[in-house]
Amino acid sequence: MRIGFIGLGQMGSAMAANLVKAGHQVTVWNRSPEKADALVAAGAARAEWPVDAAQGDLVMTMLADDRAVEGVVFGDGGIAGAPALHVGHSTISVALADRLAAESGTGGYLSAPVFGRPLAAAAGKLFVVAAGAGAALDRCEPVFAAIGQRTFRIGDKPSAANLVKLSGNFMIMAAVEAMAEAMTLAEKGGVDRSILLEVLTGTLFGAPVYQTYGEILVEDRFRPAGFAAPLGLKDMTLVDAAATAFEVPMPLLGIVRDHLRSVIATEGPDVDWAGIALAIRSSANI
Amino acid sequence: MRIGFIGLGQMGSAMAANLVKAGHQVTVWNRSPEKADALVAAGAARAEWPVDAAQGDLVMTMLADDRAVEGVVFGDGGIAGAPALHVGHSTISVALADRLAAESGTGGYLSAPVFGRPLAAAAGKLFVVAAGAGAALDRCEPVFAAIGQRTFRIGDKPSAANLVKLSGNFMIMAAVEAMAEAMTLAEKGGVDRSILLEVLTGTLFGAPVYQTYGEILVEDRFRPAGFAAPLGLKDMTLVDAAATAFEVPMPLLGIVRDHLRSVIATEGPDVDWAGIALAIRSSANI
Amino acid sequence: MRIGFIGLGQMGSAMAANLVKAGHQVTVWNRSPEKADALVAAGAARAEWPVDAAQGDLVMTMLADDRAVEGVVFGDGGIAGAPALHVGHSTISVALADRLAAESGTGGYLSAPVFGRPLAAAAGKLFVVAAGAGAALDRCEPVFAAIGQRTFRIGDKPSAANLVKLSGNFMIMAAVEAMAEAMTLAEKGGVDRSILLEVLTGTLFGAPVYQTYGEILVEDRFRPAGFAAPLGLKDMTLVDAAATAFEVPMPLLGIVRDHLRSVIATEGPDVDWAGIALAIRSSANI
Amino acid sequence: MRIGFIGLGQMGSAMAANLVKAGHQVTVWNRSPEKADALVAAGAARAEWPVDAAQGDLVMTMLADDRAVEGVVFGDGGIAGAPALHVGHSTISVALADRLAAESGTGGYLSAPVFGRPLAAAAGKLFVVAAGAGAALDRCEPVFAAIGQRTFRIGDKPSAANLVKLSGNFMIMAAVEAMAEAMTLAEKGGVDRSILLEVLTGTLFGAPVYQTYGEILVEDRFRPAGFAAPLGLKDMTLVDAAATAFEVPMPLLGIVRDHLRSVIATEGPDVDWAGIALAIRSSANI
Repeated sequence: MRIGFIGLGQMGSAMAANLVKAGHQVTVWNRSPEKADALVAAGAARAEWPVDAAQGDLVMTMLADDRAVEGVVFGDGGIAGAPALHVGHSTISVALADRLAAESGTGGYLSAPVFGRPLAAAAGKLFVVAAGAGAALDRCEPVFAAIGQRTFRIGDKPSAANLVKLSGNFMIMAAVEAMAEAMTLAEKGGVDRSILLEVLTGTLFGAPVYQTYGEILVEDRFRPAGFAAPLGLKDMTLVDAAATAFEVPMPLLGIVRDHLRSVIATEGPDVDWAGIALAIRSSANI
Repeated sequence: MRIGFIGLGQMGSAMAANLVKAGHQVTVWNRSPEKADALVAAGAARAEWPVDAAQGDLVMTMLADDRAVEGVVFGDGGIAGAPALHVGHSTISVALADRLAAESGTGGYLSAPVFGRPLAAAAGKLFVVAAGAGAALDRCEPVFAAIGQRTFRIGDKPSAANLVKLSGNFMIMAAVEAMAEAMTLAEKGGVDRSILLEVLTGTLFGAPVYQTYGEILVEDRFRPAGFAAPLGLKDMTLVDAAATAFEVPMPLLGIVRDHLRSVIATEGPDVDWAGIALAIRSSANI
Repeated sequence: MRIGFIGLGQMGSAMAANLVKAGHQVTVWNRSPEKADALVAAGAARAEWPVDAAQGDLVMTMLADDRAVEGVVFGDGGIAGAPALHVGHSTISVALADRLAAESGTGGYLSAPVFGRPLAAAAGKLFVVAAGAGAALDRCEPVFAAIGQRTFRIGDKPSAANLVKLSGNFMIMAAVEAMAEAMTLAEKGGVDRSILLEVLTGTLFGAPVYQTYGEILVEDRFRPAGFAAPLGLKDMTLVDAAATAFEVPMPLLGIVRDHLRSVIATEGPDVDWAGIALAIRSSANI
Repeated sequence: MRIGFIGLGQMGSAMAANLVKAGHQVTVWNRSPEKADALVAAGAARAEWPVDAAQGDLVMTMLADDRAVEGVVFGDGGIAGAPALHVGHSTISVALADRLAAESGTGGYLSAPVFGRPLAAAAGKLFVVAAGAGAALDRCEPVFAAIGQRTFRIGDKPSAANLVKLSGNFMIMAAVEAMAEAMTLAEKGGVDRSILLEVLTGTLFGAPVYQTYGEILVEDRFRPAGFAAPLGLKDMTLVDAAATAFEVPMPLLGIVRDHLRSVIATEGPDVDWAGIALAIRSSANI
């Protein structure tokens, strides 16, 4: 297929590279053009403007936040109104996804946010959570297969996929919060964090979220950040906006947002979002 | 071995039955004596008083709460001072476990609380979290093997095992809280609870705690209770007491305790502890 | 003085009327022009566009939210760049106040949000919280005296006044939250809400915030709303944005926002913000 | 009247002294007998055992906690069954007050906890919150007049007075929490704590609770403690027990308990309960 790819950060570069490898005809665009060099060397074309990457079958966007997506879609040289189907992989607000769906023009719009860190993206092992018109989703199957290990279809309303993605990130923070509180209690009670983790993951809690983040907490690996706390806070603020829009009290969300604020205030913006554990420990004087 | 078993509720009966099956010489005691009938029929001896069950190698206790354990140990005919090693399986407070260790007399005391529901107990598939003197733990290995699928050794301070058990129950409630908040948000945003659960368990959250409780939440199976909300609140209040003793702020604990109070107030005491989801939904007017 | 007044809701109309009464030469503008009729009848001039009200000494704005202020300042016919000193009375975000200060042009900008309900506005008994350049504040003294009973000078950074105003609204919600929790506990324990309130206001809590809102809670006067819950949630979301910007955990803020969401979901948008008491009672099954 | 007074801490000594001054025939008892010396010098009689102070018309108790009251009432030489009417001024649990009422014997029992710090006690300016049988309350009027500036009658169930007292202490902590969060936000936003306090107490928040504790927060007067954090945590844990018994979610209570744990962990047990402000500031890296 003829695919445009916009947004060549760690995640986007890896995803685009897998599309090139899978034999698609890929045109890339990034605000800082030098980030496209490696992909161009590997066979991708370089677009001058975002809209130039949106003349084929699909144009995929993988950007940092709502503002970046708005710029690339509705800004100068943006893809709004271009013929390609827009597939949005970024973690954006439900409200912006609704707007993209409403103003997508003839090309159409799908939301397809992903779960997975850069290593999973490089290995083509992302999880893709996709929503939008069924025929459009069908067309994207080979593309999703190139970047991910499994695709979940959520329904025909694109923003539903963003809501699920945001909920998933909230669930990760919630699991970290729970572990960090329990580990702090255990530690002050004389039980090593590692022992608690061994019992947890050896019994009811044997899932990647506990294994991955549990190790980070046990080994104090908060830098360099796999996912920086300010990005985590940004996502949790998007969940908060959805909770306000849908009128849903979420007290656990309030706690993790407070701990993110605290750890950013104390440790600076380069700490991992799992660093909420540091805020919890500090409150207990560990 | 010559083993006494005190406390023949759903869990205790199943555990004692597995000890009989494993060929141990078991003497049982229960406050309501008729609960011992089936075990006696299967070959166990019946004790008149708790202390009569504590004359052999071990005496195991599996009771509802601190008060029941205090009664059986320090009350009339209690096992305090008896020759058998006391192995406490009940979910009790850290403070009581410390007292049992301090006042255990010649027999000694181990804490060995378990994870698992009655079906797991019947199948000998419990997880045993054990702490106390190493030699005593060694002696118990065959007994733990008869009731459980795996034993975790936590250290030589018995109450550490109780702290880990309580932490584990807190982690379960935390996972239910997180799922219930996310599912309520998803539902009000137009995404079925079952779809959210499928994505979660298919990605980072593929652990029994999410699968088991996720299904309960999706299918509204809050009655009959697998573990009743008042028992859950009792356990969370034990965690709270430990948090006060060790001076650890635990905001997530506060939330789940509030939701337990709410669901008990609204639904009555026979609701499952996962019923905190009902309190969350109700607050969002679902 | 020659004063423009923009925004003639309940509060703004009463404030502008007091300016007319005090002998100032007042020009008014409102999006729905008929709201200006009574003031014009009382001697005010009518402006065609906002900017037409900003040609004199001062232009005061009293609008519903950030969006309304942005429209009136930066939209078509807006006051940005006009010669009059802009005095902003609206409850807006700290960020917007900073922008207004930065882009105020030659006229300059002061923030002067007010405390008080419509009755206090009509009586000229508002509290004015003002911040900005000292000379500009001096010039406004007679104007503030016409609308308020007391002016607090907060410093020379305009947005500081907005931060104080938002903090005050947060404090009101916090007092209501505290009373509602305590009253619910008392009521389920057999003590009338009115008796608890009498003891509180008769001892350490004899302040208007407890008297006014205490009576609302005792007498269930949640409709018609003195200040509607969605406006309260809007303000609390502005506090939340400031808390994120300044990296301050505010767990009590999280609670009141959740209760606002809950009461809006359950009771609809026309309920008073003190209706968070209904969410609290409902969670306890009262 | 012939009055016994048990418990001669700072509060109790001052209260007993006022009874002596008012001309009552006072017999005192304290666990550490030397604390009675000054009162004996002023004309009071010294009792050997608590029960010796309970042979007259009234016996008043003002002790640190549930355990101390249980000891003095039900322990060796305790007042249970003595002829005097027992008037309990201590801040104790609702459950213990219910037990005292149920087991008070012929003398009868009233609860009459007080609001006020030692200075107010010395000046006879306490607020007395009294509950119990009407005739017994009538008899106590002159006694309450000697120790307090005002008596509130709460009803005929003694524990209702304890519930109101505990609720009042919760309200104090809630007001401190709210101020501390708002002051921290203001401070990080560039507004002095003292300025925020001036606006608050000058507008809707002109009550002793904000004035007294506001000054403590502005001036950092957390030592020596007027009321130590561990006592505050004890009281809040009594509120928590009532909230569990009456099935009332109290999220704000959870927050203040967590902040009390945090400040005790960090600052030690000698810090004032208003020191929760330090926990809040610390979480924001002030």
